[in-house]
Amino acid sequence: DTPVNVIMRPANRFVAELVGADDLLRRLSLVSVAAAMIALKPGDTVDGNEPVIDLPMRVRPVLSMLLESGAPRVIVRDAGAPVGYLDLPAIQAVSIPQIAAGDGA
Amino acid sequence: DTPVNVIMRPANRFVAELVGADDLLRRLSLVSVAAAMIALKPGDTVDGNEPVIDLPMRVRPVLSMLLESGAPRVIVRDAGAPVGYLDLPAIQAVSIPQIAAGDGA
Repeated sequence: DTPVNVIMRPANRFVAELVGADDLLRRLSLVSVAAAMIALKPGDTVDGNEPVIDLPMRVRPVLSMLLESGAPRVIVRDAGAPVGYLDLPAIQAVSIPQIAAGDGA
Repeated sequence: DTPVNVIMRPANRFVAELVGADDLLRRLSLVSVAAAMIALKPGDTVDGNEPVIDLPMRVRPVLSMLLESGAPRVIVRDAGAPVGYLDLPAIQAVSIPQIAAGDGA
């Protein structure tokens, strides 16, 4: 197993506690924005006033930016061009604890 | 000034940096859910499947619960009865850095 997988998808509850997998912020500091973002579709518009970050970036600092900006989403740019965004549902999707199935709670 | 005010509303940028006021999570760990929540209005309904917390509680752990639950809001109970909720806009409202006016950036 890869080190990131051990933290993101611990094999059982014991390993989960050992690596502190219940530490949401530690996990979010491991997830790349590129993997978590919702891609913009052709025709989607971006308001020049929306908060923006540039890849590469991890999710954790973008969560802080989302909260402090008060905006509903943070725009993600790659090589200067908007390619996607992170909003609450997108961050929630990578926040849900994922313990491997088959390990009795 | 009260200790909480020094952290939540530092008088100037120097004090802000000194107390780490740019540490959003530290600030959220100081704000009570009772102060941050949106009150339920008469007739508002609560789904039994919604995540719920009981007062007293600080905002920071509720942010984690909101993210990990995937739900759009966390219901707040007081003495066993639902009294309000925390959603992204409510947490954003207490996340915006507040440095006292009049201190040149």
